[in-house]
Amino acid sequence: MLIDSTHYRTIWMPHEDTVRVIDQRKLPWSFELLDLSTSAQVAEAIRNMTVRGAGCIGATAGYGMALAAAEARDEAELAAKAAFLVETRPTAVNLAWAVKRVLAVLAGKPRSEWQTLAKREAEQIADEDAAACESIGKHGLALIQQIAAQKPEKPVNVLTHCNAGWLAFVDHGSATAPIYAAHDSGIPVHVWVDETRPRNQGARLTAWELRNHGVPHTVIADNSGGHLMQHGLVDLVITGADRVTRRGDVANKIGTYLKALAARDNGVPFYVALPSSTFDTDMDDGLQSIPIEQRDAAELTWMEGPDASGELHSIRVVPEGCPAANHAFDVTPARLITALITEKGVFPPGTLL
Amino acid sequence: MLIDSTHYRTIWMPHEDTVRVIDQRKLPWSFELLDLSTSAQVAEAIRNMTVRGAGCIGATAGYGMALAAAEARDEAELAAKAAFLVETRPTAVNLAWAVKRVLAVLAGKPRSEWQTLAKREAEQIADEDAAACESIGKHGLALIQQIAAQKPEKPVNVLTHCNAGWLAFVDHGSATAPIYAAHDSGIPVHVWVDETRPRNQGARLTAWELRNHGVPHTVIADNSGGHLMQHGLVDLVITGADRVTRRGDVANKIGTYLKALAARDNGVPFYVALPSSTFDTDMDDGLQSIPIEQRDAAELTWMEGPDASGELHSIRVVPEGCPAANHAFDVTPARLITALITEKGVFPPGTLL
Repeated sequence: MLIDSTHYRTIWMPHEDTVRVIDQRKLPWSFELLDLSTSAQVAEAIRNMTVRGAGCIGATAGYGMALAAAEARDEAELAAKAAFLVETRPTAVNLAWAVKRVLAVLAGKPRSEWQTLAKREAEQIADEDAAACESIGKHGLALIQQIAAQKPEKPVNVLTHCNAGWLAFVDHGSATAPIYAAHDSGIPVHVWVDETRPRNQGARLTAWELRNHGVPHTVIADNSGGHLMQHGLVDLVITGADRVTRRGDVANKIGTYLKALAARDNGVPFYVALPSSTFDTDMDDGLQSIPIEQRDAAELTWMEGPDASGELHSIRVVPEGCPAANHAFDVTPARLITALITEKGVFPPGTLL
Repeated sequence: MLIDSTHYRTIWMPHEDTVRVIDQRKLPWSFELLDLSTSAQVAEAIRNMTVRGAGCIGATAGYGMALAAAEARDEAELAAKAAFLVETRPTAVNLAWAVKRVLAVLAGKPRSEWQTLAKREAEQIADEDAAACESIGKHGLALIQQIAAQKPEKPVNVLTHCNAGWLAFVDHGSATAPIYAAHDSGIPVHVWVDETRPRNQGARLTAWELRNHGVPHTVIADNSGGHLMQHGLVDLVITGADRVTRRGDVANKIGTYLKALAARDNGVPFYVALPSSTFDTDMDDGLQSIPIEQRDAAELTWMEGPDASGELHSIRVVPEGCPAANHAFDVTPARLITALITEKGVFPPGTLL
């Protein structure tokens, strides 16, 4: 997508020993690129959320394996580096998926070919991610067009949670892809952007994306969506997913489940947009099976931003001596989901792809 | 309640021309008292949330009328000052209730008696509020005791939203009164404190109250409650209310509705604690009738707190150029509420008191 009229992906290899990423921890206050030159640095970038989001984590893990393939002297060492990458984030399924995919390509091949093969596979993973998101946009666009046809001259109000935008993938995004496609095709869309505590990916990333692309939007507290739905101010919800089970249970940023409950209570369609790489067909009952990452409470108790003069500060927002907990994801049961929007089309949850 | 071993109410008149309040905008970073000497200053303190919370707003409005009674030269002027107070916050019903109550006492009385009569009525309103909250604590305690009996040796986990603590009333609080009563009677309780965006009354006020009183608690993002309920980590929810209609629809801080939906979906009892002054028997359908205040978006887009060295900063948490909206309340339909805990007992919603 465009930043100041220049097209960017979230990740690429400018040359064969460097992975270049957008440092998402710095957004929206500054736009900085970061170069990673070892697979350990790539793992740390995933762990500390320099990169985040289902597809972007998968692509980063793929590129991390390209570096690992150049570093490792034998299969045992390669396997160790692969495991180190996989351990960085327990909930995101794309991570392990991408690592396994590169490992499968290298299996049985001579050491001398590893680097070339791994880099080629990493590029392939990234290209497929971008293409899948573009296709999700086309399928989701049809859903938005149907709603637009029922309310001529009025904007279609989409609510989204967290950032399943192009920053969470290689390009286009999943939840945002239909929104960008609708906006670009002249349908008036307006997006309610959940702030998305903690880490505020909605306010910091989704709002920044939408502003850069010129899509009308309003940032709201995570608490507000139910009220807006009660008053007919939301036509549809589209979120992303970090992992989707066989029957269609969806792990996504904490709070997604609450919005799905409100959508059901108010007859608002609730869509989850994802490339099929996000499916985990080994799991069925998401509530029982999907590991939910607990992150550092400091992500809740401290916030960062610029003061009126533009100087960045980290401030405490929970009093000292008050414990805090940071559950990063929740699971939305399939029964609350209208349909999944994938690169292959729009399917009710539980439809195996 | 106690602050550093000294008993405080949230509001009192140290002498007849001064109303003294805890400046709740400064908590938890500093504890400061503020003196108000005109009814216009009292109105501004309500509007800018120096004081907030259903009971505290009612008591403050009562004391504001005590000052107005001393200022006004005739009934027309008194009515104008009363109207000025009522206009400050549209959703809270206690505000208009307290103002009307003082006006009723003064009606037909000679101007010379106004100040004494109004001050006496204001003290009466404050005393009744404190007594009602104490009584809510006793009735709610019985509910917590029942749950505690079913899980011996384990803490009873209560989730609360916003601050319906003693800071929101004159003393004791509504939602917190049963918690304090349980803790003081030796029942192990643990409170999940919703951060409560925007304005963060949970993190800033409820957590501060609980820490001061020694009640175990954990601050969580507003997004987390559904996940905790799905995993059996919440035994009951208790919130406060800003207005409750005849049939039991509850206006409360934005986001309350989402927690009620999650409680229903997981079989967790959902209680609303309130003194009966919070009932608005003129209204039935809360969604249709209760006015929902929209406040300045800056309450969402800016946050305040100390940096690591203790220096206070206001920082931007939403990028410039991204619009934001701040709906302050939502309405939870009576069908989602297990019971109302009042000073008169525990009643299913819709039971007229």
